[in-house]
Amino acid sequence: MRIETRAQATQRDETDELAPVRERYALPDGVIYLDGNSLGALPAAAPARLAHVVSHEWGQRLIRSWDEAEWFTAPARVAGRIARLIGAGPDEVAVADSTSVNLFKLLVAACRLRPDRPVIVMHRHDFPTDVYIGRSVAELLGRRLRLLDGQDPVAALDRDTALLALSEVDFRTGARRDVHAVTRAAHDVGALALWDLSHSAGALDVDLAGATADMAVGCGYKYLAGGPGAPAFAMVARRHHEGLQTPLPGWMGHADPFAMSPEHVPGPGVAQLAAGTPPVLSLLALEEGVATFEGVAPGVLRQKGSALTQLFIELVDARCSGHGLRLVSPREASRRGSQVSVRHPAAYPLVQALIRRGVIGDFREPDIARFGFAPAYLRFADVWDAVEHLRAVLAAAEHADPELPRRGTVT
Amino acid sequence: MRIETRAQATQRDETDELAPVRERYALPDGVIYLDGNSLGALPAAAPARLAHVVSHEWGQRLIRSWDEAEWFTAPARVAGRIARLIGAGPDEVAVADSTSVNLFKLLVAACRLRPDRPVIVMHRHDFPTDVYIGRSVAELLGRRLRLLDGQDPVAALDRDTALLALSEVDFRTGARRDVHAVTRAAHDVGALALWDLSHSAGALDVDLAGATADMAVGCGYKYLAGGPGAPAFAMVARRHHEGLQTPLPGWMGHADPFAMSPEHVPGPGVAQLAAGTPPVLSLLALEEGVATFEGVAPGVLRQKGSALTQLFIELVDARCSGHGLRLVSPREASRRGSQVSVRHPAAYPLVQALIRRGVIGDFREPDIARFGFAPAYLRFADVWDAVEHLRAVLAAAEHADPELPRRGTVT
Repeated sequence: MRIETRAQATQRDETDELAPVRERYALPDGVIYLDGNSLGALPAAAPARLAHVVSHEWGQRLIRSWDEAEWFTAPARVAGRIARLIGAGPDEVAVADSTSVNLFKLLVAACRLRPDRPVIVMHRHDFPTDVYIGRSVAELLGRRLRLLDGQDPVAALDRDTALLALSEVDFRTGARRDVHAVTRAAHDVGALALWDLSHSAGALDVDLAGATADMAVGCGYKYLAGGPGAPAFAMVARRHHEGLQTPLPGWMGHADPFAMSPEHVPGPGVAQLAAGTPPVLSLLALEEGVATFEGVAPGVLRQKGSALTQLFIELVDARCSGHGLRLVSPREASRRGSQVSVRHPAAYPLVQALIRRGVIGDFREPDIARFGFAPAYLRFADVWDAVEHLRAVLAAAEHADPELPRRGTVT
Repeated sequence: MRIETRAQATQRDETDELAPVRERYALPDGVIYLDGNSLGALPAAAPARLAHVVSHEWGQRLIRSWDEAEWFTAPARVAGRIARLIGAGPDEVAVADSTSVNLFKLLVAACRLRPDRPVIVMHRHDFPTDVYIGRSVAELLGRRLRLLDGQDPVAALDRDTALLALSEVDFRTGARRDVHAVTRAAHDVGALALWDLSHSAGALDVDLAGATADMAVGCGYKYLAGGPGAPAFAMVARRHHEGLQTPLPGWMGHADPFAMSPEHVPGPGVAQLAAGTPPVLSLLALEEGVATFEGVAPGVLRQKGSALTQLFIELVDARCSGHGLRLVSPREASRRGSQVSVRHPAAYPLVQALIRRGVIGDFREPDIARFGFAPAYLRFADVWDAVEHLRAVLAAAEHADPELPRRGTVT
């Protein structure tokens, strides 16, 4: 059904099978939150859980909670729930550290699995940390980092390639890569494929097993709604477990942590990817985040995300033309993540003017306004209203208001 | 004043200048907590702070809190407070990741500062993660790890030594190394000295500047009371900032994170040690932990810790003899951290029997009962009572009770 009025948008929301999932979040009144791809919304159960963890488990039970409150097994529990959302086995996913640190572990491990191949391929416009870490690993291991610059990743692969590491969704443009085809191309030359799923997990129908992807990393605090700086995840396909060797062997990744042995005996499979003690408060908040996806099929998230972004694009086309907005994200839904980016010469104040109206998106250098559509809690009526605000801002040139906040660190 | 009765212990508590500091913690009734060196007690202000952070800052203000609630500057704020406790400048300390990951960063950075020296010296009985990470760094950089085994660290140093990395306090025995003398010896052969302060910060009068130590790492969740798995810290002396190069260059350590540039321009000094996004909930709990030390001089903590451990040793000598306990920790207070370890053939059930009585210490393989004395919140009367419980357990052979919990993962 085409949505051409607000009433139609509301009607669509009423039949949305994800409507009950929205109730699992505590969203602020008066806000249309189009930045769930920067920091996911608060799971409604998180405040009570955290209060209990802090006052009772930490305060009253103290050290005993590692066993009693099952802090020890929390990383594996959370990993199991994330695994389902990315099409991996629960024994293929670990939760630990940050995306940057996990990427470091896996890039080193991947190069060790391809000892005779000198090249790591990444994309210059990928999330900066990924490129920095790639360069660092190349330097440490005496490999070369080949940085793509717009061209087809497949064309850059050859028999020298140890590994291709890419984001599934471009954090700026929202363009979605074809994980299946690119992974196949990597395998065709004998290289491994590693995917950064930071802008995928919890929004897209990721199918790592189907794509025979080798490794993946991703963020816990975006669509997965784990809270600011939540621990990240790392996936390694079962067939690589035997040769896996992390460069960050910590006591938590030891087969028997409390043996306190001077020899590192890696835990089975991805268990060795745990390094030091995990940040339990942030980890248990992440558990509440991933719990909001209970019973939700990734395909349903993907479908709704496609429909939300499609509606946004169509409404912007129809109602905001003539104001210098240019669509950056692919028009074709299958080539797009759950995000729409537009260019505008005044993108920064434009985003600020929207925030003043309660529509929170974000700005990306140099001239991109980025809007994320978390399918778990965004409504079609929100999309309608957001575009109405955008139209009003542009029509009244609210972005020219000198009272708007100046360029700061707002993400 | 010698303490020979419980009344004298209580009297000593009444004149303790740290008595008001104890009020900054929320301690459970009926528990004598001698495990603050595994997981520090709950700061009384933490529950309300965390509730606000979760419900308001995350839930209501969402992404805006990075600026508005000063999440961005939290790592530097916390680092500044820790710096004072370890005798470093606020610009010499970073808060990020775990101790394991920070140790990795600094070991690599230290080796890069000594490119022509092939050897890293560590101790076989140091905390396992430290040894595992040391071995991994040696492998990655083509260096050798020389593991001490009981001998004097100074004797193992030579012109091949790039770096000596040691814990100030042995986590098993509680023996305290002479940071000044050992650092001097390292410098005498042109090596760097790195100290793991996990069992020092918040309990001892650490003076990194006075010792001219080069680098340090340490834990946020022990004496610093930052909560389970709190972020860790890393210190690099100012004179090494210019040549510093982290192997984990993340976007949060970039000079201008939101430029999102493909080139890594490291932030000034230790700022580059931030890698990915920090776990904000755990980080702000740590801020409450370090805030409990406001106005407290490290020397005062040290003095009280020495007195508490001394009293424990004397009372155990006087009241628990004849039951097979052997003191592992040094008898001389200056050579001891804020911890007393004793050997006993039945150390595991002994610790369990004490826990059943509300005296929480911990067990370390193979036969060590370990008792930590957090000077910020432990009382002399607690020491008296703990020894009374220990005496009673031993006298009645309560540790032989088959109903006690069996060996598990209890730390």
